[in-house]
Amino acid sequence: MNAEIIEKLKAAVGEKYVLTEDEATKPFLVDWTKRFVGKAVVVRPANTEEVSRVVRIANETRTPVVPQAGGTTLVGGSIPDDSGNAILLSLSRLNKIEDIDTVNDTVTVEAGVILEDLHKAVEEKGRFFPLSFGAKGSAEIGGNLATNAGGTAVLRYGNMRDLCLGLEVVLPDGRIWTALRGLRKDNTGYDLKQLFIGSEGTLGVITRAVLKLYPQPIGNQTALVGVESPDDAVKLLNECRTAAGPYLTGFELMQSKCLVRVHEQLPDIGLPGPVDDCPWWVLAEVSCSPDSGPSLEEILGKAFEDGIVKNAYLAQSLKEFEAFWKIRESIPEADARVGNNLHNDISLKIALIPEFLDVTVRRLKDAYPWLDPSLYGHLGDGNLHFNIGSIPSNLAFENEEGIRKITYEETVKRNGSISAEHGIGQLKREHFLQLKDPLELELMVKISHALDPNGIMNPGKLLPDRK
Amino acid sequence: MNAEIIEKLKAAVGEKYVLTEDEATKPFLVDWTKRFVGKAVVVRPANTEEVSRVVRIANETRTPVVPQAGGTTLVGGSIPDDSGNAILLSLSRLNKIEDIDTVNDTVTVEAGVILEDLHKAVEEKGRFFPLSFGAKGSAEIGGNLATNAGGTAVLRYGNMRDLCLGLEVVLPDGRIWTALRGLRKDNTGYDLKQLFIGSEGTLGVITRAVLKLYPQPIGNQTALVGVESPDDAVKLLNECRTAAGPYLTGFELMQSKCLVRVHEQLPDIGLPGPVDDCPWWVLAEVSCSPDSGPSLEEILGKAFEDGIVKNAYLAQSLKEFEAFWKIRESIPEADARVGNNLHNDISLKIALIPEFLDVTVRRLKDAYPWLDPSLYGHLGDGNLHFNIGSIPSNLAFENEEGIRKITYEETVKRNGSISAEHGIGQLKREHFLQLKDPLELELMVKISHALDPNGIMNPGKLLPDRK
Repeated sequence: MNAEIIEKLKAAVGEKYVLTEDEATKPFLVDWTKRFVGKAVVVRPANTEEVSRVVRIANETRTPVVPQAGGTTLVGGSIPDDSGNAILLSLSRLNKIEDIDTVNDTVTVEAGVILEDLHKAVEEKGRFFPLSFGAKGSAEIGGNLATNAGGTAVLRYGNMRDLCLGLEVVLPDGRIWTALRGLRKDNTGYDLKQLFIGSEGTLGVITRAVLKLYPQPIGNQTALVGVESPDDAVKLLNECRTAAGPYLTGFELMQSKCLVRVHEQLPDIGLPGPVDDCPWWVLAEVSCSPDSGPSLEEILGKAFEDGIVKNAYLAQSLKEFEAFWKIRESIPEADARVGNNLHNDISLKIALIPEFLDVTVRRLKDAYPWLDPSLYGHLGDGNLHFNIGSIPSNLAFENEEGIRKITYEETVKRNGSISAEHGIGQLKREHFLQLKDPLELELMVKISHALDPNGIMNPGKLLPDRK
Repeated sequence: MNAEIIEKLKAAVGEKYVLTEDEATKPFLVDWTKRFVGKAVVVRPANTEEVSRVVRIANETRTPVVPQAGGTTLVGGSIPDDSGNAILLSLSRLNKIEDIDTVNDTVTVEAGVILEDLHKAVEEKGRFFPLSFGAKGSAEIGGNLATNAGGTAVLRYGNMRDLCLGLEVVLPDGRIWTALRGLRKDNTGYDLKQLFIGSEGTLGVITRAVLKLYPQPIGNQTALVGVESPDDAVKLLNECRTAAGPYLTGFELMQSKCLVRVHEQLPDIGLPGPVDDCPWWVLAEVSCSPDSGPSLEEILGKAFEDGIVKNAYLAQSLKEFEAFWKIRESIPEADARVGNNLHNDISLKIALIPEFLDVTVRRLKDAYPWLDPSLYGHLGDGNLHFNIGSIPSNLAFENEEGIRKITYEETVKRNGSISAEHGIGQLKREHFLQLKDPLELELMVKISHALDPNGIMNPGKLLPDRK
């Protein structure tokens, strides 16, 4: 990057917060999966005004801007290319929780607030912010919004999109659009915040947000439930939804071998008992006490009588509840210890999942007999982390294109999504550009041109290159 | 309109479905409040393909298109101007309920399906579609989507936006964009459906949608609760939210005089007892039985001890539950029988409502001592139908500008919205254009130009005139 731009950036945010040396920039320039490594000047503004100055400089000099919050992307969405021409705009210093309003049940936060810190802050005021997933200790709110993060509580509370009531965004020309009114109803024109949520930093830089809060759950019943097949898991889901209604807050499906592997690879994490009697397990969570609402034990008892459920462990304590979730959340780490895994993150209409699993695993195994799939996901949302390992562990990666092709073909054939939660970023961009409805892609490109005429916002991610 | 265009339209949808005679077009060309009367050729396509043909003709001939579903707009949003140059595109013949999926909990519907018909159809399959409001017997899904309709169940289930998982839209150039996959999670690029929802027909014509379904409520506890002040109503709301969590499905605030007027004007609607002992009443609804979840009686008992609640009538039967809601839903009709009312539809952060009411009513009464406000609304969403009548009844209308000015000033000062539910349409357009953040307006205009370069979609509504 030319020295003049660097000087301008230093004037904008202070010399100390413009990093140019490899050692200093390195931690910002690699994604969590270590697949994407970039090169860039790292700029660390302290507030919205400084973000605005940086983007203004970038726009005037046609310098690409790559916004980054917690940097926990799994698709290289917040990593620049290796040209060294870009500004990596880190939001992590914008880390203030500004206003917890327990009457309106909203909180105003800056983009660099770590998700888990937000959980703790609102808990102290007797409130609950439901977005949660494995990386919560590092992921930051700006990234959660830019990628419309999902996780384990979507079934009841929705994605990040559903939890957001307002945004502040620095637009591609550096102007600040502030819409932080925190209203639950506002029909005065297009709901523009929806464009920025999930746009992966290609339309502007999210700097602040108003988020919804909820009362804390009034109790908890959690069980690990053994079933014969994904089909029975879908039946159980319906039973649970009907009986527990809004209190059904979690419904995760896992292969039995995922649980076994967690215990083998991470021996500190115990299982509640044998799990090899059932090929599939469900982690079901009902967020009330049995006296204040539906009883999970009763629901499972009935499903057992109906032959849907084969085995079940009910958490007997808060400690056991946490241990059950720990098993679920540790599957990716346990898989990683066995070898390299190809991560997929697909979604389908729920009824189609059992048949999809059947057909797709069979096609994959026919083509690549050494495959070792690790199948788990948020069944309640129709979302599967359809992850593919192999024995030996490098084979899956060496055959990545072929494996993804089969997986995505079967997904798209059933009108599913090739990215339910993680976004497109760099990893899935080529597939996305091939598979997406061309008309829909055309509309996205039109909007991107309308809002970012100079094409400075996170180029090389999501959308096709500008001509 | 020139004869050549009319011939093309007849070829597109069949001669019978192109109405040009005043008598035939008249019912389509006046809004519910009878304030807006337009002139247009009315075209009634039978399906998406025919809608596409009509819009293609309109685009090629630069003819304005005014989409209309149930025509229950309160702001003239689906009524053309009186130039006679426009096509009134009626969606009412697209009235098929295509697919009720009880595993995915979704339904696919055409734009012309009447909301109440949808309620009945899904109820037969044991499911529940929560959107509901007074005009449900006439309002159609396409209009509900184009205006992001709200109503009485937003507190628990959200607006129409929150209930929609996919759309089919005829774009301003006549191409059909179909995105009806019905996925709960899909992070593959911008969420384009969000642009069309709430855009009041200015970006395209919604022809089909996939909507979320829910299990039917497992019980019902409803009460009319007397309180001293809006402030106490806010306190009660917090008690109810904390104790009933997701089962709190309704929380409506009404002036005592609204209830009295309903009974006076519509004597068939009885009150459960005297209501003049309290100036304000809350209609609270908890959607479970007291054995299967929180007890409304207990919640109210505690609030009574705390001095928040002064009086309460608990519905003792389904009939009484329906009667209580009937009172609430009949307020606009009762008001209309007394005289003309200026309808407002504002929203604020909930904590600001009591003070807003104090100040604004005082300012209005100082300026217009003959005012007769009828104050009620969805307090749980921060949404007030702040309606202003007068004695004698014509005075409010004669002073419309002044009354709206004070009301909107006080709303905007508190970062509220001048249209929580009803949209902008024609009625509030001038105020909207004056009061909206100019940067936000600029972004809306940019998007409108990007998607509708010829400016044929519902001109004269919402956005400024094209130059």
